[in-house]
Amino acid sequence: MKVIRPPDRMISVSRKLTHQGKTIGVVPTMGALHEGHRSLIQASVRQNDLTILTVFVNPLQFGPSEDFSRYPRPFRKDCRIAKELGVDFIFAPHAQQLYPKGFQTVVEVTALSKRWEGLSRPGHFRGVTTVVSLLFQCTQPTRAYFGQKDYQQALVIQRLVQDMRWPIKVSILPTIREADGLAMSSRNVYLKSNQRQQAASIYTALRTALERIRMGERNAAVLTDSVRRMLLENADLRIDYVALVDAKTLEPVWKLHGRVAILVAVWVGKTRLIDNLLVDVP
Amino acid sequence: MKVIRPPDRMISVSRKLTHQGKTIGVVPTMGALHEGHRSLIQASVRQNDLTILTVFVNPLQFGPSEDFSRYPRPFRKDCRIAKELGVDFIFAPHAQQLYPKGFQTVVEVTALSKRWEGLSRPGHFRGVTTVVSLLFQCTQPTRAYFGQKDYQQALVIQRLVQDMRWPIKVSILPTIREADGLAMSSRNVYLKSNQRQQAASIYTALRTALERIRMGERNAAVLTDSVRRMLLENADLRIDYVALVDAKTLEPVWKLHGRVAILVAVWVGKTRLIDNLLVDVP
Repeated sequence: MKVIRPPDRMISVSRKLTHQGKTIGVVPTMGALHEGHRSLIQASVRQNDLTILTVFVNPLQFGPSEDFSRYPRPFRKDCRIAKELGVDFIFAPHAQQLYPKGFQTVVEVTALSKRWEGLSRPGHFRGVTTVVSLLFQCTQPTRAYFGQKDYQQALVIQRLVQDMRWPIKVSILPTIREADGLAMSSRNVYLKSNQRQQAASIYTALRTALERIRMGERNAAVLTDSVRRMLLENADLRIDYVALVDAKTLEPVWKLHGRVAILVAVWVGKTRLIDNLLVDVP
Repeated sequence: MKVIRPPDRMISVSRKLTHQGKTIGVVPTMGALHEGHRSLIQASVRQNDLTILTVFVNPLQFGPSEDFSRYPRPFRKDCRIAKELGVDFIFAPHAQQLYPKGFQTVVEVTALSKRWEGLSRPGHFRGVTTVVSLLFQCTQPTRAYFGQKDYQQALVIQRLVQDMRWPIKVSILPTIREADGLAMSSRNVYLKSNQRQQAASIYTALRTALERIRMGERNAAVLTDSVRRMLLENADLRIDYVALVDAKTLEPVWKLHGRVAILVAVWVGKTRLIDNLLVDVP
Protein backbone atom coordinates (compact mmCIF):
# COMPACT_ATOMS: atom_id res chain seq x y z
CA MET A 1 0.00 0.00 0.00
CA LYS A 2 1.27 3.45 -0.97
CA VAL A 3 0.42 6.83 0.51
CA ILE A 4 0.23 9.55 -2.14
CA ARG A 5 0.08 13.26 -1.26
CA PRO A 6 0.54 15.33 -4.46
CA PRO A 7 -2.65 15.45 -6.57
CA ASP A 8 -0.66 15.33 -9.80
CA ARG A 9 1.05 12.12 -8.76
CA MET A 10 -2.32 10.58 -7.87
CA ILE A 11 -3.65 11.63 -11.28
CA SER A 12 -0.77 10.04 -13.17
CA VAL A 13 -1.07 6.81 -11.15
CA SER A 14 -4.85 6.55 -11.66
CA ARG A 15 -4.60 7.43 -15.33
CA LYS A 16 -1.99 4.74 -15.86
CA LEU A 17 -4.20 2.18 -14.12
CA THR A 18 -7.18 3.22 -16.25
CA HIS A 19 -5.12 2.83 -19.42
CA GLN A 20 -4.20 -0.67 -18.29
CA GLY A 21 -7.93 -1.41 -18.14
CA LYS A 22 -8.01 -1.76 -14.35
CA THR A 23 -11.19 -0.94 -12.45
CA ILE A 24 -10.65 1.50 -9.59
CA GLY A 25 -12.79 1.63 -6.45
CA VAL A 26 -12.60 4.88 -4.49
CA VAL A 27 -13.71 5.40 -0.89
CA PRO A 28 -13.67 9.12 -0.04
CA THR A 29 -13.28 9.73 3.70
CA MET A 30 -12.08 12.29 6.21
CA GLY A 31 -10.13 9.52 7.95
CA ALA A 32 -10.78 8.44 11.56
CA LEU A 33 -11.93 5.15 10.07
CA HIS A 34 -14.66 3.16 11.80
CA GLU A 35 -16.70 0.06 10.98
CA GLY A 36 -18.79 2.05 8.50
CA HIS A 37 -15.71 2.94 6.48
CA ARG A 38 -14.51 -0.65 6.77
CA SER A 39 -17.63 -1.94 5.08
CA LEU A 40 -17.19 0.57 2.22
CA ILE A 41 -13.54 -0.42 1.79
CA GLN A 42 -14.39 -4.12 1.85
CA ALA A 43 -17.02 -3.65 -0.86
CA SER A 44 -14.55 -1.69 -2.97
CA VAL A 45 -11.80 -4.29 -2.56
CA ARG A 46 -14.27 -7.03 -3.52
CA GLN A 47 -15.66 -5.24 -6.58
CA ASN A 48 -12.59 -3.58 -8.14
CA ASP A 49 -9.08 -4.42 -9.31
CA LEU A 50 -7.67 -1.67 -7.10
CA THR A 51 -8.93 0.44 -4.22
CA ILE A 52 -7.97 4.02 -3.45
CA LEU A 53 -8.90 5.35 -0.02
CA THR A 54 -8.92 9.13 0.12
CA VAL A 55 -8.25 10.69 3.52
CA PHE A 56 -8.80 14.44 3.55
CA VAL A 57 -10.36 16.62 6.23
CA ASN A 58 -11.79 19.14 3.80
CA PRO A 59 -11.78 22.68 5.22
CA LEU A 60 -14.34 23.82 2.59
CA GLN A 61 -17.13 21.68 4.03
CA PHE A 62 -16.84 22.92 7.61
CA GLY A 63 -18.58 26.08 8.80
CA PRO A 64 -16.58 28.68 10.75
CA SER A 65 -17.97 27.51 14.10
CA GLU A 66 -17.72 23.80 13.33
CA ASP A 67 -15.25 21.14 14.43
CA PHE A 68 -12.65 21.35 11.64
CA SER A 69 -9.68 21.84 13.96
CA ARG A 70 -10.66 19.22 16.52
CA TYR A 71 -11.86 16.63 13.99
CA PRO A 72 -9.92 13.41 14.80
CA ARG A 73 -6.91 12.68 12.55
CA PRO A 74 -5.43 9.30 13.57
CA PHE A 75 -3.59 8.93 10.27
CA ARG A 76 -1.24 6.11 11.25
CA LYS A 77 -4.05 4.00 12.62
CA ASP A 78 -6.07 4.68 9.44
CA CYS A 79 -3.12 3.50 7.34
CA ARG A 80 -2.90 0.28 9.36
CA ILE A 81 -6.61 -0.43 8.91
CA ALA A 82 -6.49 0.38 5.21
CA LYS A 83 -3.50 -1.87 4.59
CA GLU A 84 -5.08 -4.72 6.51
CA LEU A 85 -8.26 -4.41 4.38
CA GLY A 86 -6.35 -4.51 1.10
CA VAL A 87 -6.37 -0.86 0.08
CA ASP A 88 -3.80 -0.20 -2.68
CA PHE A 89 -3.37 3.57 -2.38
CA ILE A 90 -4.21 6.15 0.24
CA PHE A 91 -4.63 9.55 -1.38
CA ALA A 92 -4.11 12.09 1.41
CA PRO A 93 -3.31 15.47 -0.11
CA HIS A 94 -2.52 18.52 1.99
CA ALA A 95 -5.15 21.26 1.77
CA GLN A 96 -2.75 23.65 0.05
CA GLN A 97 -2.02 20.98 -2.57
CA LEU A 98 -5.66 20.43 -3.44
CA TYR A 99 -6.53 24.13 -3.11
CA PRO A 100 -3.40 26.02 -4.15
CA LYS A 101 -3.22 29.82 -3.90
CA GLY A 102 -5.76 31.38 -6.25
CA PHE A 103 -8.06 28.33 -6.26
CA GLN A 104 -11.60 29.64 -6.78
CA THR A 105 -13.78 27.02 -8.44
CA VAL A 106 -16.90 25.73 -6.73
CA VAL A 107 -19.20 22.91 -7.78
CA GLU A 108 -22.72 22.88 -6.45
CA VAL A 109 -25.78 20.64 -6.69
CA THR A 110 -28.53 23.14 -6.09
CA ALA A 111 -31.97 21.71 -5.24
CA LEU A 112 -30.85 18.58 -3.36
CA SER A 113 -28.41 20.65 -1.25
CA LYS A 114 -30.99 23.20 -0.11
CA ARG A 115 -32.81 21.51 2.77
CA TRP A 116 -31.80 19.63 5.94
CA GLU A 117 -28.01 19.49 6.22
CA GLY A 118 -27.77 22.26 3.63
CA LEU A 119 -29.91 24.57 5.72
CA SER A 120 -28.22 23.72 9.03
CA ARG A 121 -24.73 23.83 7.57
CA PRO A 122 -24.56 26.62 4.95
CA GLY A 123 -21.89 25.94 2.35
CA HIS A 124 -21.39 22.37 3.56
CA PHE A 125 -22.52 20.59 0.41
CA ARG A 126 -20.79 23.11 -1.82
CA GLY A 127 -17.60 22.08 -0.01
CA VAL A 128 -18.45 18.41 -0.40
CA THR A 129 -19.27 18.55 -4.11
CA THR A 130 -16.22 20.70 -4.84
CA VAL A 131 -13.82 18.35 -3.07
CA VAL A 132 -15.46 15.22 -4.44
CA SER A 133 -15.13 16.63 -7.97
CA LEU A 134 -11.42 17.12 -7.34
CA LEU A 135 -10.94 13.75 -5.64
CA PHE A 136 -12.70 11.99 -8.51
CA GLN A 137 -10.57 13.86 -11.03
CA CYS A 138 -7.44 12.75 -9.17
CA THR A 139 -8.46 9.12 -8.64
CA GLN A 140 -10.56 8.32 -11.76
CA PRO A 141 -12.92 5.90 -10.01
CA THR A 142 -14.87 3.17 -11.76
CA ARG A 143 -16.97 2.92 -8.60
CA ALA A 144 -17.20 5.20 -5.56
CA TYR A 145 -18.59 4.23 -2.16
CA PHE A 146 -20.57 6.29 0.33
CA GLY A 147 -22.43 5.40 3.51
CA GLN A 148 -26.18 5.72 3.87
CA LYS A 149 -25.67 7.46 7.23
CA ASP A 150 -24.93 10.64 5.26
CA TYR A 151 -27.91 10.02 3.04
CA GLN A 152 -28.37 13.53 1.66
CA GLN A 153 -24.65 13.71 0.85
CA ALA A 154 -24.85 10.42 -1.02
CA LEU A 155 -27.84 11.62 -3.08
CA VAL A 156 -26.11 14.93 -3.82
CA ILE A 157 -23.06 13.08 -5.10
CA GLN A 158 -25.12 10.67 -7.19
CA ARG A 159 -26.80 13.70 -8.77
CA LEU A 160 -23.44 15.42 -9.37
CA VAL A 161 -22.06 12.35 -11.13
CA GLN A 162 -25.22 11.95 -13.21
CA ASP A 163 -25.41 15.64 -14.18
CA MET A 164 -21.73 15.88 -15.10
CA ARG A 165 -21.87 12.53 -16.93
CA TRP A 166 -18.87 11.09 -15.18
CA PRO A 167 -18.49 7.35 -15.87
CA ILE A 168 -18.64 6.46 -12.18
CA LYS A 169 -21.03 4.13 -10.37
CA VAL A 170 -21.89 5.65 -6.99
CA SER A 171 -22.81 2.98 -4.42
CA ILE A 172 -24.64 3.84 -1.21
CA LEU A 173 -24.02 1.13 1.39
CA PRO A 174 -26.07 0.48 4.54
CA THR A 175 -25.29 2.33 7.76
CA ILE A 176 -23.17 0.29 10.17
CA ARG A 177 -24.26 0.61 13.81
CA GLU A 178 -22.98 0.04 17.32
CA ALA A 179 -24.61 -2.79 19.33
CA ASP A 180 -27.21 -0.36 20.71
CA GLY A 181 -28.02 1.01 17.27
CA LEU A 182 -26.04 4.26 17.26
CA ALA A 183 -24.85 4.91 13.71
CA MET A 184 -21.06 4.68 13.39
CA SER A 185 -19.53 8.14 13.00
CA SER A 186 -16.10 9.60 13.53
CA ARG A 187 -17.82 12.20 15.70
CA ASN A 188 -19.05 9.61 18.22
CA VAL A 189 -15.69 9.94 20.02
CA TYR A 190 -16.78 13.44 21.11
CA LEU A 191 -19.58 11.96 23.25
CA LYS A 192 -19.23 11.72 27.02
CA SER A 193 -20.58 8.46 28.46
CA ASN A 194 -23.98 9.83 29.56
CA GLN A 195 -24.32 11.52 26.16
CA ARG A 196 -23.36 8.28 24.46
CA GLN A 197 -26.36 6.56 26.09
CA GLN A 198 -28.73 9.33 25.07
CA ALA A 199 -27.41 9.20 21.49
CA ALA A 200 -28.68 5.62 21.22
CA SER A 201 -32.23 6.96 21.43
CA ILE A 202 -31.89 8.33 17.89
CA TYR A 203 -31.98 4.83 16.46
CA THR A 204 -34.65 3.69 18.93
CA ALA A 205 -36.89 6.57 17.83
CA LEU A 206 -36.24 5.83 14.15
CA ARG A 207 -37.06 2.15 14.67
CA THR A 208 -40.24 2.98 16.52
CA ALA A 209 -41.37 5.21 13.66
CA LEU A 210 -40.56 2.41 11.23
CA GLU A 211 -42.69 -0.01 13.26
CA ARG A 212 -45.59 2.44 13.31
CA ILE A 213 -45.35 2.78 9.53
CA ARG A 214 -45.39 -1.01 9.20
CA MET A 215 -48.45 -1.06 11.45
CA GLY A 216 -50.21 1.25 9.00
CA GLU A 217 -49.48 4.82 10.10
CA ARG A 218 -49.27 7.05 6.99
CA ASN A 219 -49.47 10.53 8.52
CA ALA A 220 -46.01 12.17 8.48
CA ALA A 221 -46.91 14.73 11.17
CA VAL A 222 -47.98 12.02 13.60
CA LEU A 223 -44.74 10.13 12.97
CA THR A 224 -42.36 13.10 13.28
CA ASP A 225 -44.19 14.08 16.46
CA SER A 226 -43.62 10.69 18.00
CA VAL A 227 -39.92 10.69 17.01
CA ARG A 228 -39.53 14.18 18.49
CA ARG A 229 -41.21 13.18 21.73
CA MET A 230 -38.97 10.13 22.15
CA LEU A 231 -35.84 12.17 21.46
CA LEU A 232 -36.81 14.93 23.87
CA GLU A 233 -36.93 12.49 26.76
CA ASN A 234 -33.13 12.90 26.77
CA ALA A 235 -31.91 15.88 28.80
CA ASP A 236 -28.78 16.67 26.72
CA LEU A 237 -30.40 16.23 23.35
CA ARG A 238 -31.57 19.12 21.15
CA ILE A 239 -33.39 18.44 17.91
CA ASP A 240 -32.18 20.15 14.74
CA TYR A 241 -34.70 18.47 12.45
CA VAL A 242 -36.89 15.39 12.17
CA ALA A 243 -38.44 14.90 8.75
CA LEU A 244 -40.22 12.40 6.57
CA VAL A 245 -39.17 12.99 2.99
CA ASP A 246 -39.36 11.52 -0.45
CA ALA A 247 -36.26 9.32 -0.68
CA LYS A 248 -35.32 10.65 -4.13
CA THR A 249 -36.06 14.38 -3.93
CA LEU A 250 -35.74 14.89 -0.14
CA GLU A 251 -38.87 17.03 -0.27
CA PRO A 252 -41.15 16.61 2.78
CA VAL A 253 -44.10 14.27 2.43
CA TRP A 254 -47.39 14.61 4.34
CA LYS A 255 -49.02 11.32 3.54
CA LEU A 256 -46.50 8.49 3.23
CA HIS A 257 -46.26 6.71 -0.09
CA GLY A 258 -43.49 5.01 -2.03
CA ARG A 259 -39.88 5.13 -0.87
CA VAL A 260 -39.57 7.46 2.09
CA ALA A 261 -36.63 8.51 4.27
CA ILE A 262 -36.92 9.40 7.95
CA LEU A 263 -34.20 11.96 8.62
CA VAL A 264 -32.96 13.00 12.04
CA ALA A 265 -30.34 15.57 13.06
CA VAL A 266 -29.72 16.29 16.72
CA TRP A 267 -27.24 17.95 18.99
CA VAL A 268 -26.07 15.84 21.92
CA GLY A 269 -24.27 18.42 24.01
CA LYS A 270 -21.87 20.06 21.54
CA THR A 271 -21.85 17.10 19.15
CA ARG A 272 -24.06 17.11 16.11
CA LEU A 273 -25.27 13.67 14.96
CA ILE A 274 -27.39 12.59 12.00
CA ASP A 275 -29.12 9.35 11.14
CA ASN A 276 -31.86 8.05 8.86
CA LEU A 277 -33.88 5.04 7.82
CA LEU A 278 -35.39 4.22 4.45
CA VAL A 279 -38.85 2.68 4.21
CA ASP A 280 -40.80 1.36 1.25
CA VAL A 281 -44.40 2.31 1.92
CA PRO A 282 -46.90 0.26 -0.08
CA MET B 1 -17.69 15.39 -41.00
CA LYS B 2 -20.33 14.07 -38.62
CA VAL B 3 -22.94 15.96 -36.62
CA ILE B 4 -23.53 14.42 -33.18
CA ARG B 5 -26.45 15.39 -30.96
CA PRO B 6 -26.67 12.96 -27.98
CA PRO B 7 -24.07 13.73 -25.29
CA ASP B 8 -23.55 10.03 -24.59
CA ARG B 9 -22.69 9.33 -28.20
CA MET B 10 -20.22 12.23 -28.19
CA ILE B 11 -18.65 10.82 -25.03
CA SER B 12 -18.21 7.36 -26.49
CA VAL B 13 -16.71 8.77 -29.69
CA SER B 14 -14.27 11.05 -27.86
CA ARG B 15 -13.30 8.34 -25.40
CA LYS B 16 -12.57 5.94 -28.23
CA LEU B 17 -10.38 8.53 -29.95
CA THR B 18 -8.53 9.22 -26.69
CA HIS B 19 -7.89 5.50 -26.23
CA GLN B 20 -6.45 5.39 -29.73
CA GLY B 21 -4.00 8.07 -28.61
CA LYS B 22 -5.46 10.78 -30.84
CA THR B 23 -5.22 14.43 -29.80
CA ILE B 24 -8.55 16.23 -29.85
CA GLY B 25 -8.96 19.96 -30.42
CA VAL B 26 -12.25 21.46 -29.28
CA VAL B 27 -13.69 24.82 -30.31
CA PRO B 28 -16.73 25.65 -28.15
CA THR B 29 -19.10 28.08 -29.91
CA MET B 30 -22.72 29.17 -29.97
CA GLY B 31 -22.63 28.84 -33.76
CA ALA B 32 -23.19 31.78 -36.14
CA LEU B 33 -19.56 31.30 -37.13
CA HIS B 34 -17.50 34.29 -38.20
CA GLU B 35 -13.83 34.93 -39.01
CA GLY B 36 -12.95 34.79 -35.31
CA HIS B 37 -14.31 31.25 -35.04
CA ARG B 38 -12.56 30.35 -38.29
CA SER B 39 -9.19 31.28 -36.85
CA LEU B 40 -9.86 29.12 -33.76
CA ILE B 41 -10.93 26.17 -35.92
CA GLN B 42 -7.91 26.55 -38.17
CA ALA B 43 -5.57 26.51 -35.17
CA SER B 44 -7.28 23.42 -33.82
CA VAL B 45 -7.13 21.58 -37.14
CA ARG B 46 -3.42 22.45 -37.42
CA GLN B 47 -2.51 21.39 -33.89
CA ASN B 48 -4.61 18.24 -33.29
CA ASP B 49 -5.36 14.90 -34.91
CA LEU B 50 -9.08 15.68 -34.80
CA THR B 51 -11.22 18.75 -34.26
CA ILE B 52 -14.62 18.87 -32.59
CA LEU B 53 -16.65 22.04 -33.03
CA THR B 54 -19.37 22.43 -30.43
CA VAL B 55 -22.41 24.47 -31.45
CA PHE B 56 -24.75 25.15 -28.56
CA VAL B 57 -26.70 28.30 -27.73
CA ASN B 58 -26.56 27.78 -23.99
CA PRO B 59 -29.73 29.01 -22.23
CA LEU B 60 -27.92 29.04 -18.85
CA GLN B 61 -25.59 31.86 -19.83
CA PHE B 62 -28.29 34.27 -21.00
CA GLY B 63 -30.12 36.57 -18.60
CA PRO B 64 -33.94 36.72 -18.74
CA SER B 65 -33.92 40.00 -20.70
CA GLU B 66 -31.09 39.01 -23.02
CA ASP B 67 -31.05 37.85 -26.63
CA PHE B 68 -31.31 34.06 -26.22
CA SER B 69 -34.32 33.66 -28.48
CA ARG B 70 -33.14 35.97 -31.24
CA TYR B 71 -29.50 34.83 -31.17
CA PRO B 72 -28.66 33.80 -34.77
CA ARG B 73 -28.71 30.03 -35.48
CA PRO B 74 -27.60 29.49 -39.09
CA PHE B 75 -26.79 25.83 -38.45
CA ARG B 76 -26.53 24.66 -42.07
CA LYS B 77 -24.17 27.46 -42.97
CA ASP B 78 -22.09 26.67 -39.86
CA CYS B 79 -21.86 23.03 -40.96
CA ARG B 80 -20.66 24.09 -44.40
CA ILE B 81 -17.96 26.33 -42.93
CA ALA B 82 -16.87 23.67 -40.42
CA LYS B 83 -16.61 20.98 -43.10
CA GLU B 84 -14.64 23.25 -45.40
CA LEU B 85 -12.17 24.00 -42.58
CA GLY B 86 -11.58 20.32 -41.79
CA VAL B 87 -13.69 19.87 -38.66
CA ASP B 88 -14.25 16.16 -37.92
CA PHE B 89 -17.28 16.35 -35.61
CA ILE B 90 -19.86 18.99 -34.79
CA PHE B 91 -21.28 18.37 -31.33
CA ALA B 92 -24.62 20.16 -31.26
CA PRO B 93 -26.73 18.77 -28.41
CA HIS B 94 -30.28 19.92 -27.75
CA ALA B 95 -30.70 21.81 -24.49
CA GLN B 96 -32.87 19.06 -23.00
CA GLN B 97 -30.17 16.52 -23.83
CA LEU B 98 -27.41 18.43 -22.06
CA TYR B 99 -29.71 19.54 -19.23
CA PRO B 100 -32.25 16.74 -18.76
CA LYS B 101 -35.13 17.05 -16.30
CA GLY B 102 -33.77 17.27 -12.77
CA PHE B 103 -30.38 18.68 -13.83
CA GLN B 104 -29.15 20.92 -11.02
CA THR B 105 -25.36 21.07 -10.95
CA VAL B 106 -23.57 24.40 -11.34
CA VAL B 107 -19.87 25.06 -11.70
CA GLU B 108 -18.58 28.48 -10.80
CA VAL B 109 -15.24 30.31 -10.83
CA THR B 110 -15.80 32.85 -8.11
CA ALA B 111 -13.33 35.76 -7.98
CA LEU B 112 -12.61 36.08 -11.70
CA SER B 113 -16.35 35.99 -12.50
CA LYS B 114 -17.31 38.79 -10.13
CA ARG B 115 -16.46 41.98 -11.98
CA TRP B 116 -17.16 43.40 -15.46
CA GLU B 117 -19.23 40.91 -17.49
CA GLY B 118 -20.11 39.09 -14.26
CA LEU B 119 -21.54 42.27 -12.76
CA SER B 120 -23.39 43.34 -15.89
CA ARG B 121 -24.67 39.85 -16.66
CA PRO B 122 -25.52 38.09 -13.37
CA GLY B 123 -25.26 34.32 -13.73
CA HIS B 124 -23.58 34.58 -17.12
CA PHE B 125 -20.25 33.02 -16.17
CA ARG B 126 -21.92 30.39 -14.01
CA GLY B 127 -23.75 29.37 -17.18
CA VAL B 128 -20.53 29.43 -19.17
CA THR B 129 -18.47 27.38 -16.71
CA THR B 130 -21.28 24.87 -16.22
CA VAL B 131 -21.73 24.27 -19.94
CA VAL B 132 -18.01 24.24 -20.65
CA SER B 133 -17.55 21.60 -17.93
CA LEU B 134 -20.17 19.47 -19.64
CA LEU B 135 -18.86 20.10 -23.15
CA PHE B 136 -15.34 19.18 -22.03
CA GLN B 137 -16.63 16.03 -20.36
CA CYS B 138 -18.39 15.07 -23.60
CA THR B 139 -15.54 15.90 -25.96
CA GLN B 140 -12.41 15.12 -23.90
CA PRO B 141 -10.24 17.84 -25.44
CA THR B 142 -6.46 17.79 -25.54
CA ARG B 143 -6.63 21.49 -26.44
CA ALA B 144 -9.51 23.97 -26.34
CA TYR B 145 -9.64 27.27 -28.18
CA PHE B 146 -11.20 30.58 -27.15
CA GLY B 147 -11.04 34.07 -28.62
CA GLN B 148 -9.41 36.98 -26.83
CA LYS B 149 -12.47 39.12 -27.63
CA ASP B 150 -14.19 37.44 -24.66
CA TYR B 151 -11.12 37.92 -22.53
CA GLN B 152 -12.71 37.52 -19.11
CA GLN B 153 -14.46 34.35 -20.27
CA ALA B 154 -11.18 32.92 -21.52
CA LEU B 155 -9.45 33.66 -18.19
CA VAL B 156 -12.36 32.15 -16.24
CA ILE B 157 -12.11 28.96 -18.29
CA GLN B 158 -8.34 28.77 -17.92
CA ARG B 159 -8.84 29.05 -14.15
CA LEU B 160 -11.57 26.38 -14.18
CA VAL B 161 -9.32 23.95 -16.04
CA GLN B 162 -6.38 24.67 -13.75
CA ASP B 163 -8.42 24.38 -10.53
CA MET B 164 -10.15 21.17 -11.59
CA ARG B 165 -6.86 19.72 -12.91
CA TRP B 166 -8.28 18.76 -16.26
CA PRO B 167 -5.54 17.74 -18.70
CA ILE B 168 -6.55 20.38 -21.25
CA LYS B 169 -4.48 23.17 -22.77
CA VAL B 170 -6.64 26.28 -23.08
CA SER B 171 -5.47 28.55 -25.91
CA ILE B 172 -6.58 32.17 -26.17
CA LEU B 173 -6.20 33.38 -29.75
CA PRO B 174 -6.11 37.01 -30.94
CA THR B 175 -9.32 38.86 -31.71
CA ILE B 176 -10.16 38.94 -35.41
CA ARG B 177 -11.47 42.30 -36.64
CA GLU B 178 -13.39 43.84 -39.50
CA ALA B 179 -11.47 46.19 -41.81
CA ASP B 180 -12.41 49.18 -39.63
CA GLY B 181 -11.32 47.42 -36.44
CA LEU B 182 -14.69 46.25 -35.05
CA ALA B 183 -14.14 42.94 -33.26
CA MET B 184 -15.86 40.04 -35.02
CA SER B 185 -18.94 38.93 -33.08
CA SER B 186 -22.06 36.99 -33.92
CA ARG B 187 -23.97 39.92 -32.44
CA ASN B 188 -22.67 42.38 -35.04
CA VAL B 189 -25.54 41.32 -37.34
CA TYR B 190 -27.91 43.09 -34.93
CA LEU B 191 -26.37 46.48 -35.80
CA LYS B 192 -28.12 48.89 -38.16
CA SER B 193 -25.79 50.61 -40.60
CA ASN B 194 -25.45 53.87 -38.64
CA GLN B 195 -24.86 51.84 -35.47
CA ARG B 196 -22.29 49.72 -37.31
CA GLN B 197 -20.24 52.87 -38.00
CA GLN B 198 -20.44 54.00 -34.38
CA ALA B 199 -19.39 50.54 -33.17
CA ALA B 200 -16.07 50.99 -34.98
CA SER B 201 -15.20 53.74 -32.50
CA ILE B 202 -14.68 51.09 -29.79
CA TYR B 203 -11.52 49.90 -31.46
CA THR B 204 -10.42 53.44 -32.35
CA ALA B 205 -10.74 54.44 -28.70
CA LEU B 206 -8.85 51.32 -27.53
CA ARG B 207 -6.07 51.99 -30.05
CA THR B 208 -5.81 55.62 -28.96
CA ALA B 209 -5.42 54.54 -25.33
CA LEU B 210 -2.76 52.05 -26.40
CA GLU B 211 -0.87 54.81 -28.19
CA ARG B 212 -1.03 57.07 -25.15
CA ILE B 213 0.36 54.25 -22.99
CA ARG B 214 3.17 53.76 -25.49
CA MET B 215 3.83 57.51 -25.31
CA GLY B 216 4.28 57.18 -21.55
CA GLU B 217 0.86 57.68 -19.94
CA ARG B 218 0.62 55.51 -16.80
CA ASN B 219 -2.45 56.97 -15.08
CA ALA B 220 -5.44 54.64 -15.50
CA ALA B 221 -8.01 57.33 -14.71
CA VAL B 222 -6.63 59.63 -17.42
CA LEU B 223 -6.77 56.78 -19.93
CA THR B 224 -10.28 55.52 -19.11
CA ASP B 225 -11.47 59.14 -19.25
CA SER B 226 -10.09 59.58 -22.74
CA VAL B 227 -11.63 56.29 -23.92
CA ARG B 228 -14.97 57.31 -22.43
CA ARG B 229 -14.87 60.70 -24.10
CA MET B 230 -14.14 59.21 -27.50
CA LEU B 231 -16.94 56.66 -27.15
CA LEU B 232 -19.47 59.26 -26.04
CA GLU B 233 -19.03 61.21 -29.28
CA ASN B 234 -21.38 58.57 -30.74
CA ALA B 235 -25.07 59.37 -30.29
CA ASP B 236 -26.35 55.75 -30.06
CA LEU B 237 -23.58 54.47 -27.82
CA ARG B 238 -23.99 53.94 -24.06
CA ILE B 239 -21.01 52.90 -21.96
CA ASP B 240 -21.40 49.92 -19.64
CA TYR B 241 -17.80 49.94 -18.43
CA VAL B 242 -14.33 51.07 -19.44
CA ALA B 243 -11.55 49.72 -17.24
CA LEU B 244 -7.82 49.24 -17.01
CA VAL B 245 -7.15 46.01 -15.20
CA ASP B 246 -4.40 43.61 -14.31
CA ALA B 247 -4.41 41.11 -17.18
CA LYS B 248 -4.25 38.11 -14.84
CA THR B 249 -6.58 39.03 -11.97
CA LEU B 250 -8.87 41.52 -13.78
CA GLU B 251 -8.62 43.79 -10.73
CA PRO B 252 -8.52 47.51 -11.59
CA VAL B 253 -5.11 49.16 -11.69
CA TRP B 254 -4.46 52.84 -10.91
CA LYS B 255 -0.90 53.20 -12.08
CA LEU B 256 -0.13 51.00 -15.08
CA HIS B 257 2.53 48.36 -14.69
CA GLY B 258 3.13 44.90 -16.13
CA ARG B 259 0.58 43.23 -18.36
CA VAL B 260 -2.61 45.28 -18.43
CA ALA B 261 -5.94 44.82 -20.21
CA ILE B 262 -8.12 47.67 -21.41
CA LEU B 263 -11.71 46.42 -21.22
CA VAL B 264 -14.70 48.04 -22.88
CA ALA B 265 -18.39 47.12 -22.83
CA VAL B 266 -20.93 49.31 -24.58
CA TRP B 267 -24.49 49.27 -25.78
CA VAL B 268 -24.99 50.37 -29.35
CA GLY B 269 -28.73 50.79 -29.48
CA LYS B 270 -30.03 47.47 -28.13
CA THR B 271 -26.86 45.55 -28.94
CA ARG B 272 -24.23 44.95 -26.28
CA LEU B 273 -20.66 44.75 -27.53
CA ILE B 274 -17.39 44.08 -25.73
CA ASP B 275 -13.77 44.44 -26.76
CA ASN B 276 -10.32 44.68 -25.19
CA LEU B 277 -6.63 45.15 -25.83
CA LEU B 278 -3.68 43.77 -23.91
CA VAL B 279 -0.61 45.93 -23.28
CA ASP B 280 2.74 45.10 -21.72
CA VAL B 281 3.69 48.16 -19.72
CA PRO B 282 7.42 48.35 -18.94
